[in-house]
Amino acid sequence: MTPNTGVAWLTGEEDAAWRGWIEATQRIAAAIEHDLRNDSGLTFDDYEVLVTLSEADGRAQRMSELAMSTVQSASRLSQRIDRLADRGLVERRPCEEDKRGWFAVLTDEGLASLAAAAPGHVESVRRNLFDHLSPDDVVTLAEMMPRLASSFHAARAHADD
Amino acid sequence: MTPNTGVAWLTGEEDAAWRGWIEATQRIAAAIEHDLRNDSGLTFDDYEVLVTLSEADGRAQRMSELAMSTVQSASRLSQRIDRLADRGLVERRPCEEDKRGWFAVLTDEGLASLAAAAPGHVESVRRNLFDHLSPDDVVTLAEMMPRLASSFHAARAHADD
Repeated sequence: MTPNTGVAWLTGEEDAAWRGWIEATQRIAAAIEHDLRNDSGLTFDDYEVLVTLSEADGRAQRMSELAMSTVQSASRLSQRIDRLADRGLVERRPCEEDKRGWFAVLTDEGLASLAAAAPGHVESVRRNLFDHLSPDDVVTLAEMMPRLASSFHAARAHADD
Repeated sequence: MTPNTGVAWLTGEEDAAWRGWIEATQRIAAAIEHDLRNDSGLTFDDYEVLVTLSEADGRAQRMSELAMSTVQSASRLSQRIDRLADRGLVERRPCEEDKRGWFAVLTDEGLASLAAAAPGHVESVRRNLFDHLSPDDVVTLAEMMPRLASSFHAARAHADD
């Protein structure tokens, strides 16, 4: 029993990349969440839901699609939509074709809250991320990060086969 | 009152980088956490605490330093250490010089749990991140991510002035 035989441990360069990835992604997410809560009373996941709905046809999206596009479990998203509905920022609307299905819909008040939060949020994203990146870094990330995200879309498509 | 005047909205390239950043970092963290819980019963934050202690002098670190190095609030870290202590993986030890201070110490059982979890965790990190990166991508991230993380160290140093 030599369980560690054959393990492809991280190289020095990979280890630096991975430790840096963990710390940078956690600190940036925490700082931006902190700013957003202070400025607008929204969590980062709330904000993502509002943005996604604001860009959807009729400002509405099926709950199941919204969970996938915002990387949230169906149960957590459902609780989040309840809280946003309590504040008047979204509404639940039954799906006409599918009696078990529900849509989340962005209200006018939700759109106004998003519009009010956006300038401060963008400033926070700049201060915590883009102010520390060169133009070349941005080009690199604009190619690399969507590619990394898309590897999960491929995995999901295979799982659905 | 035109609150959006003067806002430096994200450029197309920045927007792609930021949306990709959010999705990639969230999906990778969720996938690695899922694998770690399934394989070893540890959360990602548990694993980070055990790694940090395993690399510290005498496998011990002050609670306040451990909170900073693992990007956790003092209260959340304290609850986590309680749960890890219940499982025999860490111990709390009072600090001899400072009567209000406490150390967290990795036990032999904690070190054994970490050693048992590590091969599967490294495999998960490769499958979810490094398998989708070229050698050049790794060099780029090994420079960029620690630099982004260090911008928060500088901010903390100023806040302590």
